[in-house]
Amino acid sequence: MIQPSLSPDLKGRWESMQAAMKKQGTNGCLLTIDVNLYYMTGRVFNGYFYLPIEGDPWFFVKRPQSFKGNNVVFLHKPEQLAELFSVNNIEMPKKLLLEADELSYNMYMRIFNALQPEEVENATLTIHKLREIKRPYEIEQLRYSALKHAETYHHIPECYKPGMTDIELQAEIELQMRKNGSYGIFHTFGMNMEIFMGSILVGDNALEPSPYDFALGGKGISAAMPIGANGTPIREGNTIMVDMAGNYTPYTTDMTRVYAVGKISNEAYHAHQVSRDIEQQIMHIAKPGTACADLYNLSLEIATKEGLGNCFMGHHQQAKFVGHGIGIQINELPILTPRSHEKLKTNMVFALEPKFVIPGVGAVGIENSFLVTPTGVEKLTHFEEDIIQL
Amino acid sequence: MIQPSLSPDLKGRWESMQAAMKKQGTNGCLLTIDVNLYYMTGRVFNGYFYLPIEGDPWFFVKRPQSFKGNNVVFLHKPEQLAELFSVNNIEMPKKLLLEADELSYNMYMRIFNALQPEEVENATLTIHKLREIKRPYEIEQLRYSALKHAETYHHIPECYKPGMTDIELQAEIELQMRKNGSYGIFHTFGMNMEIFMGSILVGDNALEPSPYDFALGGKGISAAMPIGANGTPIREGNTIMVDMAGNYTPYTTDMTRVYAVGKISNEAYHAHQVSRDIEQQIMHIAKPGTACADLYNLSLEIATKEGLGNCFMGHHQQAKFVGHGIGIQINELPILTPRSHEKLKTNMVFALEPKFVIPGVGAVGIENSFLVTPTGVEKLTHFEEDIIQL
Repeated sequence: MIQPSLSPDLKGRWESMQAAMKKQGTNGCLLTIDVNLYYMTGRVFNGYFYLPIEGDPWFFVKRPQSFKGNNVVFLHKPEQLAELFSVNNIEMPKKLLLEADELSYNMYMRIFNALQPEEVENATLTIHKLREIKRPYEIEQLRYSALKHAETYHHIPECYKPGMTDIELQAEIELQMRKNGSYGIFHTFGMNMEIFMGSILVGDNALEPSPYDFALGGKGISAAMPIGANGTPIREGNTIMVDMAGNYTPYTTDMTRVYAVGKISNEAYHAHQVSRDIEQQIMHIAKPGTACADLYNLSLEIATKEGLGNCFMGHHQQAKFVGHGIGIQINELPILTPRSHEKLKTNMVFALEPKFVIPGVGAVGIENSFLVTPTGVEKLTHFEEDIIQL
Repeated sequence: MIQPSLSPDLKGRWESMQAAMKKQGTNGCLLTIDVNLYYMTGRVFNGYFYLPIEGDPWFFVKRPQSFKGNNVVFLHKPEQLAELFSVNNIEMPKKLLLEADELSYNMYMRIFNALQPEEVENATLTIHKLREIKRPYEIEQLRYSALKHAETYHHIPECYKPGMTDIELQAEIELQMRKNGSYGIFHTFGMNMEIFMGSILVGDNALEPSPYDFALGGKGISAAMPIGANGTPIREGNTIMVDMAGNYTPYTTDMTRVYAVGKISNEAYHAHQVSRDIEQQIMHIAKPGTACADLYNLSLEIATKEGLGNCFMGHHQQAKFVGHGIGIQINELPILTPRSHEKLKTNMVFALEPKFVIPGVGAVGIENSFLVTPTGVEKLTHFEEDIIQL
């Protein structure tokens, strides 16, 4: 990729974490989950990042053995941590932050037993709250992903050939993505949450409920991953909803567009327009201080007023959110749900995806990624928003 | 895919788990991790599979709401489990199996507090031992994946164009894989273990150590996932090691082949031949009862005798295994390491991957997937094993 003009400012991240720790009354934070390591160190390694309440962090590394830098200590297993803390004169933390929503029970207990803190707080929650507010370098990464994301979508009409199925079209889009610099891998947060490079929904496959906590469903090509394209042939009168990942940096943008072959029903055109109206109205009111719940409630209110409440965010099964934070993972904080107690803050980045599923036609609506600015929101993903003819 | 001629025989799997529970003295097993749900129920859902020590299992389902079948109970959260056990006259398990290596600490504690068993045993270990011995339906899935795997590799020469980088070649192979029915997604076991559809290593990128527990490394295109192709141009005299996934069913085969443009060094040809010799000798001795450690030790012994001990399974950093079980995940039991206490058993399926990294040339060697038969081993992945000219 183009060399970013800004540095990752890891020190600033450590200081933010230390400020959060002071507020909580915790004395140290031990991280080992890949996305959190990447956030705090700019790389993924096999080992542990330890940040004391004051001073520089420590890197306890199993692999790669070529890891270099200050405060790097090699180890084989977490059971060595107490001794290595002692040898290096690192104060043992009384109140320790551990990734309780991400570490396996057994790994958590191994670390806990090694360091024997008096108390543990949830590092997952703490770091997710930090990661929610993007730093300048991160916003630059997201802007770059957004540009590349739109560039790939420009090539989608070339990917289409009459007679294709959804999965055949998806494979050609995946190639375009990779040619355009997509990393392939797609990081999600949460148990069992997975998807392969994104989702394409054609026609009534959009009605299929899925077990995952994504906005829409789709049957998928296997009961082992029931989400997205399922081999549906692309036919006139159906929509093709393209929600492929913007993973062109480690920071992923989210953008959905709808394509169609020939005419679709008036109801579907109308619903698509309502999605655009919802976005317009949210762009009008969203700014630092706006309640995330209000954004969901406004969306549902508009959908209901337009007679589309029963097909908003799904049909047989309706998702209870209209947007979500994005970053190193596709589903970060904040979440735009009716139950959210969060308010928008400057430098949050979120995806807004008011979508409708119209039986007999398919899914319609748009999704864009937004940066919260001091005075409002700025759209990052710029690309044609009408239904695009193939 | 072609309709399988065998049924998944879920009942047989439940009975095997119940037999293991009797042996352990556990009274019930609650599973919720996707690959384990898939193994026990033939599908992924959001919820819990509960198998009592006797009788039929229960399905506690959050999503999809369209889930149908016997003993299906809908719920919103694990805290409802105790009440739902009571309402349905399910005996509360005193000694419960939970997925301690896979569940997050917080989710484990929520389930534990909901059911309050007197003791907990590790379901991860128990189900991995069950999954290690493949059932007839699973072997059929693996045979099908192996066929498709080889079919894709046939097309690799068409994917290559002079002047390509490793990642450009990989993108074209990924398209071939998808056209040929690859599921895309690639399931691995273990914290932070991830890779995107497989790995291509060209030239000295094979020397780059990686943090992951895969056989070889590679720098990758991002510090957020440092594994595999890194943009190295494909040049004469370098090898191109292709280790892309055989994920054409939910069961994944593993197969590596080496391609080259023009001549490579004699040392590299020799090392490739030694890899084939190791495979031949292992095929000669491997059968039910053979110690997995012996297979590793024999491989290292041959490599060392041929003067290749220092580049066996990596160079700066050497992996301490020469093979691993395969199935729903790419890294199942058994593992062919010097520390293994396991012996081969009939219907295990494993990948054997004696590989060498030659500085200035790249990685050489082969990998194939094998089924353990009552009298020996049977190769599942049939494809040209010489270094293939592009």
